[in-house]
Amino acid sequence: MPYTVTVRDHLMIAHSFSGDLFGPAQRLHGATFIVDATFGADDVEADGVVIDIGRAGATLAEITGALTYRNLDDDPAFAGINTTTEVLCRVVADRLAARVAEGELGGNSVTTISVTMHESHIAWASYSRSL
Amino acid sequence: MPYTVTVRDHLMIAHSFSGDLFGPAQRLHGATFIVDATFGADDVEADGVVIDIGRAGATLAEITGALTYRNLDDDPAFAGINTTTEVLCRVVADRLAARVAEGELGGNSVTTISVTMHESHIAWASYSRSL
Amino acid sequence: MPYTVTVRDHLMIAHSFSGDLFGPAQRLHGATFIVDATFGADDVEADGVVIDIGRAGATLAEITGALTYRNLDDDPAFAGINTTTEVLCRVVADRLAARVAEGELGGNSVTTISVTMHESHIAWASYSRSL
Amino acid sequence: MPYTVTVRDHLMIAHSFSGDLFGPAQRLHGATFIVDATFGADDVEADGVVIDIGRAGATLAEITGALTYRNLDDDPAFAGINTTTEVLCRVVADRLAARVAEGELGGNSVTTISVTMHESHIAWASYSRSL
Amino acid sequence: MPYTVTVRDHLMIAHSFSGDLFGPAQRLHGATFIVDATFGADDVEADGVVIDIGRAGATLAEITGALTYRNLDDDPAFAGINTTTEVLCRVVADRLAARVAEGELGGNSVTTISVTMHESHIAWASYSRSL
Amino acid sequence: MPYTVTVRDHLMIAHSFSGDLFGPAQRLHGATFIVDATFGADDVEADGVVIDIGRAGATLAEITGALTYRNLDDDPAFAGINTTTEVLCRVVADRLAARVAEGELGGNSVTTISVTMHESHIAWASYSRSL
Repeated sequence: MPYTVTVRDHLMIAHSFSGDLFGPAQRLHGATFIVDATFGADDVEADGVVIDIGRAGATLAEITGALTYRNLDDDPAFAGINTTTEVLCRVVADRLAARVAEGELGGNSVTTISVTMHESHIAWASYSRSL
Repeated sequence: MPYTVTVRDHLMIAHSFSGDLFGPAQRLHGATFIVDATFGADDVEADGVVIDIGRAGATLAEITGALTYRNLDDDPAFAGINTTTEVLCRVVADRLAARVAEGELGGNSVTTISVTMHESHIAWASYSRSL
Repeated sequence: MPYTVTVRDHLMIAHSFSGDLFGPAQRLHGATFIVDATFGADDVEADGVVIDIGRAGATLAEITGALTYRNLDDDPAFAGINTTTEVLCRVVADRLAARVAEGELGGNSVTTISVTMHESHIAWASYSRSL
Repeated sequence: MPYTVTVRDHLMIAHSFSGDLFGPAQRLHGATFIVDATFGADDVEADGVVIDIGRAGATLAEITGALTYRNLDDDPAFAGINTTTEVLCRVVADRLAARVAEGELGGNSVTTISVTMHESHIAWASYSRSL
Repeated sequence: MPYTVTVRDHLMIAHSFSGDLFGPAQRLHGATFIVDATFGADDVEADGVVIDIGRAGATLAEITGALTYRNLDDDPAFAGINTTTEVLCRVVADRLAARVAEGELGGNSVTTISVTMHESHIAWASYSRSL
Repeated sequence: MPYTVTVRDHLMIAHSFSGDLFGPAQRLHGATFIVDATFGADDVEADGVVIDIGRAGATLAEITGALTYRNLDDDPAFAGINTTTEVLCRVVADRLAARVAEGELGGNSVTTISVTMHESHIAWASYSRSL
């Protein structure tokens, strides 16, 4: 996509992982995720924007707000699923895509969404999808 | 592109936007844009570089220097155009592309240019193009 | 102060400076300021906090909200004053201090306020004061 | 202190807070804390260092390692205490001070320790003490 | 690739460059490179991960550990080669790819590797390849 | 000091350390140092500034320019001295102080100088002095 716009927010959650692979992260622990949501488009609209950045930020805040200050192990949406950084990127991207599809963010030109979540200053993940 | 090289600079401008979409940003305000210019290539040259990074930085500084410490509303180049972050990314990328095409940056291998501009710690945009 | 707590916000303004010292910054231009407000205390309260960080963030947002998306040259509060980064740090710190003194942030233990404002990735200023 | 040296590490924990002040953070949630440990000295030693930075980093890693990937609500050391960012800064600083006092970090010149913990890109706290 | 995971490490080396292009960098000098290694995959594995992030970090640390605290001009692997940031990105990416191919990182789904190396706060490069 | 202003620059050098303490850093290696020079003052001047930030940046660039792209082991100024991050902070601070004392930076109000040098994303040092 030639154009992208990104907005940043964060969430703070508890969770634990299943699988020997995760070592001490099998214990209940937590994370701050810095969430970068990127909207891609082939062109800008007449106003010169990919998307209404104010509404994009507000929508992202709603999505992170529904996840933050919680123990994700207790969220039925994640039953039987490891809420790894990769998986949470997909969850946030899919929820954003649904909101864009409903026309909530005001842009008709958005064709891709990518979400990057930083779990620390030395590790992050991303998930990208088309609309 | 397998290889990229990026150089960073910044500019500090006043501007205003037209369109209800922009809410309070319709008023004259301003921004510092942190500008990241990325040059992509299929291969490095004999010297092991995508581009002469010194000349790349100097060229980017000339381009940002022509925009900085100004009110973009007064620049004829932007008459009738909202100088959104997305649009400014394209402007800087196109100006860099013209300079590369003129051979000023010394690299024959550059095939793409991408410009990312950070308007704050929580919002940025980018524009990518081929040469 | 042994303890500090810091919250970050930002504002985007237009302004110009008076004085040969400022060179091209005498022209109308603008800036994004990343604003870090630090509250210092000798001890934490019973809850284990220097200050209610939620209210601290909300108060900072009100103060930055009153300044952002504006041309500071038109603000009577700054008539005859260069709104340099140093001066804006003092303005924000003084406004925060008044709010703390009114008991709005809920902490009795705060004794100092420091504000750092980043005008770019390569320049910032700060102002510190006691309450 | 004229001289300081800082090393960075991180920890990822679950916890909850007691007190209406904390709103939704009264629920079990979690955080990544980026931990910056600063050692201050009046002078450098003959080698030109405040402290053996390798041992400083290793000691900090031991201290963060004893806290990370855990639910702090279950740690007897924190019974009846809100593990706010401010409090955790003091805990890490005190544990580092004990190690310095035992001569483990190899510096005789260290006189102060300051710990800053970033809970997100928009909030952090610190605690400073003398040795 | 829809999914990526990135881990960060660093190395500190001396080197010099051959070629008039490099100006003063033809002299023996040095650099800290912040190294970001990104693993891309079409899907996550059953555990919800692209790759075992612990093993990814450990493998990256081995590769940076074999390069750090050295004068790259003395390393036979780089005889006759300018160890530019671009070239070092490729070296690290190729070494990581070999380790992934040997099954050391535990992921069968990784299909691409990208390495970004930051030589300063204003310049960085990257190299991307498939497995 | 109530007021501070900081400018950032960087330098890229080779060096080695003497002393068992330094382990592998006894070998010739190198570093990028991100250099933050902070000027403190009790008050701002009539123009509203601690110091002419343009001249401050230019002076810092001269000082870093005299050090960068060199092997510090060959610099007579550092004979018999380990050029640790702490020591280099003092060297840059002292050189800046001499320039301020000569009136080069245009501020009469500067009373302190502090220099922080980042050797990586996980380690930095500082040195502070009065004028």
